[in-house]
Amino acid sequence: MKKLINDPYKVVDETISGILKAYPYHLKMAKGSSRALVRKDAPVKGKVAICTGGGSGHIPVFLGYVGPGLLDGVSIGNVFSSPGADDMVAATREIDGGAGVLYLFGNYSGDKMNFEMAAEMAALDGITVKTSIASDDVASAPPAEKKRRRGIAGIFFAYKIAGAKADTKATLDEVKATADKVIENTCTMGVALSPCTIPAVGKPNFIIADDEMELGMGIHGEPGIERTKMKSADEVAAIMADKVIKDLPFKAKDEVAVLVNGLGATPPEELFIMYNKFYDILGERGISVYKAFIGEYATSMEMAGASFTLLKLDSEFKKLLDAPAFSPFLPQWRRA
Amino acid sequence: MKKLINDPYKVVDETISGILKAYPYHLKMAKGSSRALVRKDAPVKGKVAICTGGGSGHIPVFLGYVGPGLLDGVSIGNVFSSPGADDMVAATREIDGGAGVLYLFGNYSGDKMNFEMAAEMAALDGITVKTSIASDDVASAPPAEKKRRRGIAGIFFAYKIAGAKADTKATLDEVKATADKVIENTCTMGVALSPCTIPAVGKPNFIIADDEMELGMGIHGEPGIERTKMKSADEVAAIMADKVIKDLPFKAKDEVAVLVNGLGATPPEELFIMYNKFYDILGERGISVYKAFIGEYATSMEMAGASFTLLKLDSEFKKLLDAPAFSPFLPQWRRA
Repeated sequence: MKKLINDPYKVVDETISGILKAYPYHLKMAKGSSRALVRKDAPVKGKVAICTGGGSGHIPVFLGYVGPGLLDGVSIGNVFSSPGADDMVAATREIDGGAGVLYLFGNYSGDKMNFEMAAEMAALDGITVKTSIASDDVASAPPAEKKRRRGIAGIFFAYKIAGAKADTKATLDEVKATADKVIENTCTMGVALSPCTIPAVGKPNFIIADDEMELGMGIHGEPGIERTKMKSADEVAAIMADKVIKDLPFKAKDEVAVLVNGLGATPPEELFIMYNKFYDILGERGISVYKAFIGEYATSMEMAGASFTLLKLDSEFKKLLDAPAFSPFLPQWRRA
Repeated sequence: MKKLINDPYKVVDETISGILKAYPYHLKMAKGSSRALVRKDAPVKGKVAICTGGGSGHIPVFLGYVGPGLLDGVSIGNVFSSPGADDMVAATREIDGGAGVLYLFGNYSGDKMNFEMAAEMAALDGITVKTSIASDDVASAPPAEKKRRRGIAGIFFAYKIAGAKADTKATLDEVKATADKVIENTCTMGVALSPCTIPAVGKPNFIIADDEMELGMGIHGEPGIERTKMKSADEVAAIMADKVIKDLPFKAKDEVAVLVNGLGATPPEELFIMYNKFYDILGERGISVYKAFIGEYATSMEMAGASFTLLKLDSEFKKLLDAPAFSPFLPQWRRA
């Protein structure tokens, strides 16, 4: 295990400490917790607040999406482990501006259980909580069982669009409906080329041969659809695009947002080589790209690989996608 | 070599093609070149234009820094190789808004030779060119020979601040003086944990044992100061900070901007763990952090490692650092 860390059991706390020292004007710790961050200006009175959370090891997921135009709070678990319900509640209390709180997170059993418990605890404080669960990974269950799917990089679109919706002073039901609609219209597929190592475990989370890749692997190394010999970028892109396009399905004349996400060790150059092919495939099918996001939006530490996400847009989604949003973890949004 | 690429000899052209498909509203190809990108709105009349360039494999260096508030054009070489003078001139012609052009690039012999040739060719077209060369790598030559040093991640600060200066409609001499002053006040030191592979070469550019790191290694694998057994993040940060602080030297009551840059495969979590220690060391020495930049600002493909940069600030630098700047490759600048 070759990592720039100190004690493997202090990785998460030292990461959070570094983040608070780097962005003291952007984030603060929620009272009564050491694993919950909220917007510096929380609570925003009268605005629906959005709270996320999940295991560490995926920056900018989850904490990188807290900020104006995005989310209000986040609870932070150990590497690849759910945060505790107490930390979720600590964030919830601090971000509630009186209009209720949306819990928006990925479909993993630990997170679901703890967020459910947190919602019950928040209710005792008189805070109304609703829940939206991202499940965009097409490789993890068939289309008919979409709700069983894992949530992966596509949750970024739900964060961005629901965050912008909340900024319009929409009601909790409206923000939840928007998040749910994004989730329904988001499909992602990933490919992994190398494993990563949970610091406290000390050895790689799976083994893959030097000439192999795994299509559809999850961001914690969950099994994918097919382990295969390495293929060219164009071949891999074609397989991923075909699977994603057929899933919703995306059709001619659809307008989409695209996310090509790097899992950690994959250089930006390779993501653009992949996008070069994705763009052409979408064009051949008559699907037009409104906006592309290319970079590291949901990582798995030093894992090599990438994922491809499509979101079907309508006029409201386009407006919300383009709305201003601020986080030191995210590139500029300006489209033109 | 495990990479998401097609033909190793087409990596650069396919990367550029992907970038133009992703950001058609942000960048365009310069006329008469296939390796020079310029701002979509180039030339900006009456503004000093800034042109950079260098080898591929370092995104967001170099092309990611082209945009409003930043640079106007870039020429793009093969992986780790200088671009040709023709491409530099193609960019120069397209960005000159009548106020002259500053060539701002890193201190590598191929780049210097070609930019010098390009400046002579531009002069024949009646375009005034001046040159600033970044040389921030403290490990590559002693302080007395600062101009011999390699340019590495610290060039980001020269881009940002000179770009903002040009936006004030300063003269070419003023923009060059600003860039030179940033360069004089910027010191960087890196550490490498693993090599990277140039696609057309097909094997790693150096070998390093599983339990070793190299302090001061350059971003192309140039030899560093010391190869040593792996140390803890805090130990590595202490060595790097000490070397950088003593170099300028940075002193009590100085205000600085900090860049903790990931070389490619190093997870964001580890960069924040490093920053957690850097921040404390700076505090102990009475040096205060005005703004921190943490992430991948200058990569070496899939190399693992990081670099630490300090820039000594004055009131003008602070204002220029905070000025708006737009690129799809860069996070938000907003400080508060």
